[in-house]
This record gives sequence, structure tokens and C-alpha cells, in this order.
Amino acid sequence: MLHGLRQLATPLADGGMRVVADAWVAFEEGRVAAVGSGTPPAGGERIDADGMVAIPGFVDSHTHAVFGRSRADELERRVRGESYASIAASGGGILASVADLRRRSEDELVELARPRLLAMLASGTTTAEVKSGYGLSLDDELKTLRAIERLRSLVSLELVPTFLGAHAVPPEFLADRAGYVRLLAREMLPAVADQGLARFCDVFCDRGAFTLEEAETVLSAARDLGLGLKVHADEFENLGATEMAVRLGAASADHLLRVGESGIRALAGSRTVATLLPGTALFLGLPYAPARRLLEAGATLALATDFNPGSCPCASMATVWTLASCGMGVPLDDALRALTLGGARALGLQDEVGCVAPGRRADLSLFDVADYREIPYFFGENRCAGVVRGGSVVWSRSSPQS
Amino acid sequence: MLHGLRQLATPLADGGMRVVADAWVAFEEGRVAAVGSGTPPAGGERIDADGMVAIPGFVDSHTHAVFGRSRADELERRVRGESYASIAASGGGILASVADLRRRSEDELVELARPRLLAMLASGTTTAEVKSGYGLSLDDELKTLRAIERLRSLVSLELVPTFLGAHAVPPEFLADRAGYVRLLAREMLPAVADQGLARFCDVFCDRGAFTLEEAETVLSAARDLGLGLKVHADEFENLGATEMAVRLGAASADHLLRVGESGIRALAGSRTVATLLPGTALFLGLPYAPARRLLEAGATLALATDFNPGSCPCASMATVWTLASCGMGVPLDDALRALTLGGARALGLQDEVGCVAPGRRADLSLFDVADYREIPYFFGENRCAGVVRGGSVVWSRSSPQS
Repeated sequence: MLHGLRQLATPLADGGMRVVADAWVAFEEGRVAAVGSGTPPAGGERIDADGMVAIPGFVDSHTHAVFGRSRADELERRVRGESYASIAASGGGILASVADLRRRSEDELVELARPRLLAMLASGTTTAEVKSGYGLSLDDELKTLRAIERLRSLVSLELVPTFLGAHAVPPEFLADRAGYVRLLAREMLPAVADQGLARFCDVFCDRGAFTLEEAETVLSAARDLGLGLKVHADEFENLGATEMAVRLGAASADHLLRVGESGIRALAGSRTVATLLPGTALFLGLPYAPARRLLEAGATLALATDFNPGSCPCASMATVWTLASCGMGVPLDDALRALTLGGARALGLQDEVGCVAPGRRADLSLFDVADYREIPYFFGENRCAGVVRGGSVVWSRSSPQS
Repeated sequence: MLHGLRQLATPLADGGMRVVADAWVAFEEGRVAAVGSGTPPAGGERIDADGMVAIPGFVDSHTHAVFGRSRADELERRVRGESYASIAASGGGILASVADLRRRSEDELVELARPRLLAMLASGTTTAEVKSGYGLSLDDELKTLRAIERLRSLVSLELVPTFLGAHAVPPEFLADRAGYVRLLAREMLPAVADQGLARFCDVFCDRGAFTLEEAETVLSAARDLGLGLKVHADEFENLGATEMAVRLGAASADHLLRVGESGIRALAGSRTVATLLPGTALFLGLPYAPARRLLEAGATLALATDFNPGSCPCASMATVWTLASCGMGVPLDDALRALTLGGARALGLQDEVGCVAPGRRADLSLFDVADYREIPYFFGENRCAGVVRGGSVVWSRSSPQS
């Protein structure tokens, strides 16, 4: 029983919002049993919310949180006008993180990622997808996915692992792209599936990454192995990756900075979630994805951080909310839905998390604000005061190490 | 003595940066006595920096931190496409905050502002300017300035008070603008100066606020009373306010979203600081000020939050750094200079604060990063771990209530 909430605000599964003043939330076996206002029923373990405002825990459905060193050195180059593509072409970018990660042990990756995941938790995220993709060899990809598996028991976030072996063509295959695609489809994916280390397979389909045809080869192999599909689509160039993602029944098409009308129509008529990552546009100085157009067309939106060392070192979903609303013009309630239920749908968890309603997992985040709309309003400041998962407090501002 | 720093990074007063690895900073009577690397000299009170990275405390030279309620309700209207000007015209905007502040006591204003100033401190700011301007009557402006005066002894930030009676024409003077300008120049300013409650006088010179002529009347009166001058210039429309600010010898011209070539040339050839507030552009969905152009022309830049309830509820200078570099293309070192020494110059404190060098006040902020360039890099997350003022720890992440 969580009581003493100044306000509870949650999107509802069938549309609309529920905003309850002076609220309480009753739990049963880690799930929400009831939501009410005024004097709460007596009995049971009680958590005093101390006048905070609760929303569903954020569901961050797109992160690359397992990596080695930061790449702050590249920020200066970009600020001075060098493009992300040019930095990548000169040994920076994803391949810099690949060279770095390959030198590190699984233990090191766990130690490096842990505080990042705690920073996510401390800003109100209760479920996060984490991708591999800085290994790009069988051993290094498995090492990354095992690190994610170990992190699941070390942090109080729910982690959803995604295999992103098709993040870039590794240096040793630059003269044999087809060979790397074969390795992905015939060796790496079967090993990942066999060991149960990933729930999704993602492919970076773009200029400088994988072609449509290569992407489809990898995604088809993943689908045959029972993995869900995700696509990095239309980030730098429109190759038709969004339309392909929809055609293959992907759970989500992510980025969409360059999506066109045909991609928007394809998403709107599908169950593929349009996952937008406005922190990346900000950090790279690129125009935002056409969020309003996607909403108006009827696409299901998710909003996520894209937390990664090259294009968005941001762990905060509240910051993403500010950028979505102030930068992309997404109304506040639509943005909250995309940050919670939308992310849950992009991870196939829409019946479990992303809203506060009877039967759902009791995952909530508490904020030190007067109204839920102040969460994106007071930007650049983490107002998260506590996090509840499965009905128990797993993080609190007053004892941050717990 | 602050020792155990992984790195100290500071702009230098005569240009350039000093970056010291494995650094220590010795203090004497609240000022920096020496900076070195390696084993520090023995003796004296010792503060263990525990591997953190130090920079000069941020100097936030433009805030409106004393106000009543938040205006998160207006955010939704703006996200849906209504302009800031249209919201102001319908009873929202600055006049909504005026109606609210007039109903509150001085005690209430102190209680409301205190946690905001603590949030600034906790994100690494050691000096902050705070403006009045939501009172717009003699009594309500004096009440606001007295609240700022009381806050100086309640928080560990240095506060610099600015009189902004010319923030908007109050409702009771809408039919008699000249009467309000007379009141400002002949009654309010003399009272403020007489009671020593402000160091600067600021005027909002823009469409919907004060004309060039009205602004000059107020600023000239302030100058005659010995106050420093500041101007809200070229935010929504270019009226020539920047050129006027330079002509009157103002300490700063602030906002500059619409500054033109003649304003840029005027600033470049003057001692008037160009104060940029990129959080406001982000929050209002407006194009950024031409920061690169100003830098190239040779203007002195300051970067500040503009912390206020209507157009930028952001207390974090690290967030401003990210926006300046990623959004406006200001190189990281130029941005750090603008966030510290530039702000100090905009407040006439350039010989006291804004860099870590012998003789300067020992005001430093410590960040939990591997390199100072990671402060803007890890955006949306407050990495500030501790704040030192006058050689003493005044805030620490591990005991946030201190």
C-alpha cells in the first residue's frame, strides 16, 4: 500500500489518462490491486509517499548502456562542425567503442554499466531495454549479453536484452560484408537464441551501416529463431527501413528522423511502434523526428533515451519528456503515454508494465513536484524522489545507495 | 586545501584554459592560495576530493528565481502551438506571476525560493543573480528584493540582486504607460537604491514589454543612482535594444535571439557582455541566439539559466552547457568560460569569481566524471558531487541537507 500521494497520473491501456488527487495504490503480490483517493483501507505493509506525485515507472525501450569508456572527446569535434559520419569514418564512432569493449572483461562491463543503470533507476526508470552491439564478434557479443544477464540481478530495474550484432560491420569484415551477414545469421544469432540471452534482434539499417537487403537477411533469421524484431530506421538517411520493419512485423522502428510519408502511413496501419529518441537529435544537432505527424496519422509512439556513448549519453526519461514536448510538440499526456505504455508495447510488455491499473506490476516512480506536468517542466533537474518496483521501494533519494 | 582531484579545469582570466591532472588547490582566508599537481603540501584543514573533477563554481548571471507558483499549466498550451505572447495576452505569462506574487508574503517568497536556490547550488552554481520583476508596484518590488536579501543568509550561494520593475507594464497602468515609467524612475528606483537592495537595474525592452525610449528613461535614472545596467534585449523582436545597452554602458545585454549584425558589432567593440540563455530557446521552441557569430566577432559571452516560471524553469548550468555546445555550437572550453568568467563579468565580479587562480575566491564545484568535458556530455543527469565556497564544503551529494 502506497499512500499519501499528492497525485497519481497514469495513461490507461484503452486510451486517455487517469489523474487522481490525494491518491493511494494498494498492492498484492507485487501487482496493483486497487487505486483510490482519500483515506486508504487499513492493513498491510505501508509506504508513505509523503506528498509526492506518482506516475508509472518509465519504460526506456532503447538503450546501449553496456559500453566501455565515454566518448566525450568526440563531442568537441562535433561541436566544431564535424559530422557524426565523418568522425566514424576516421576511427571514432561505434568502431571506437567496439575496439574498447573488445579489450574489456565481462566483469569490467558489469562494473561500468552498473552505475549507469542506477542513474536510470534514480531518474524514475523501472524497465530498460539494453542492446549489445559494441562486440561484433561471437565472443564479444556473448560477453556483452552475459554482462546484461548478470546486471539483471545487480540492479532493481527490469532489463530486456536485445542482440545488436548488426550495429556496424566490424573492421575485420570491411572487405567481406556478406561474410559478416552470414556470420550473424548462421552463427551468432543461433548461439544467442540457444543460450536464451536476448529477447529481440535489432539491426542498424542506414547509410554507413547495413543495407535493406542485409538487414532483412539478419532479421528474417532472427524471426525464424523466435526473437522479436527491432530496426534502427531512417536516422541519417531514408532507405525504406521503416517500411521493411513494418512488413517484417517488427515490434518497433526506432529513430525515424528521416521517415517519410510512406513510412508514417506504414507505421500508422501496423502494430509496429514508432520509437522516437529526441535526446539523440539534440546531442547530434539534427532536426527532430516528425512526432506530431506520426501522432496525427495514428502511429503508436514510444519515447526512449537511446543512452549510448556516441550520440546520446543521457539516462533521463524526464529529459526526453521535455525534449519531446518542447522540441517536438508532443502534448504532455501523449508524451507520458509514449514514455511508459508506448515503451512497454515496443518491448512486448504492454500487459505487464507502463500503466498503474489493477493487475499490472506495481512499478511506480515518485516525483517531488506539485503536478505530474511539472516533471518535464522543471528540466535539467532530477525531481525523482523514489522508485517502487513490484510493490517495494527499490530506490529513494534519502538513501541513494539502497 | 582541496586534494585528491582527478582533474582541475579552469578558464584563465587572460584567455586560454588551465587543465591540471591529479590536482590540489590550497586556500587561505577563503581564497585560492596555490594550485598544483601530485603530492600536496602538508598542513591545514584538508578536504578529500575523492577523485572528482573540479571546475570554478558556475556563475549564473540571469535568473528570476523568486516567484510564487509554477506555470506548468502554460506548458501544455505552448506545446499545442499557442505562442508565449498569446498566452501572455490572455492573462497568462508574466502578469499571471505578478498576480500570484502580489498575494504572497515576504516569508512565503523566501520559503518558495529557498529550495530552488538549493537546486542551483546542488548542480554546481556558487554565484547567482536574482531579479525582482513579478511585483511591479513599489511595495511588491521591495518585498521581492527583501526576500532576496534574506535568502543571502539562508543559502550558501552568493546572490546578486537586480531590480526589474520594468519587466512588464502592470495591469493598473495599461492605460498610462508613461505613468508607470515615471513611477519606476522617480519613486521605485530611488527607494531601491536608497535601501541598497539592488546592484543592477534591468529592463525588458521588447515587443509587448517596454519601448526603446521607455527603457532608456528607466536605465538612465538607474545609472544616475549608481546602479549597474542590464537589458533583456532582442528576445522576440529586434528593436535595437542591444545597441542601446552598449551605448548606455550596460554590464550585459541578455537573450539576443534576434540580435542583428549591428548589435553583434556593437557588443564586440564594447565591455557589454552578451548573455545567452539557450534553455529559454529550447523551452519556448525558438531558434537559438547566434552564439558562434558573436564569438567570432569577438564579443564576451556569458551563459546563464534564465531560471523563471514561464520560459525556462531550469536551474542547471550543466544543462545550459549541453545546450550551448550541442545546440548553439559553442566549443566546450568557450562555453565553460561563458558559464563562469563570462557570468562573473556580467555581474562585475570578474576579479573575484569565475576562475580558479591565486587571489580569487575559493569557489569550486566537484563533479563525478572522468574529465570536465563529461559534464555537458552526460546530460539530463546531475553529476555534481560537492560544492566548495570560500574554501569550505557547503554542499555534498552524500549529505544533501547540509
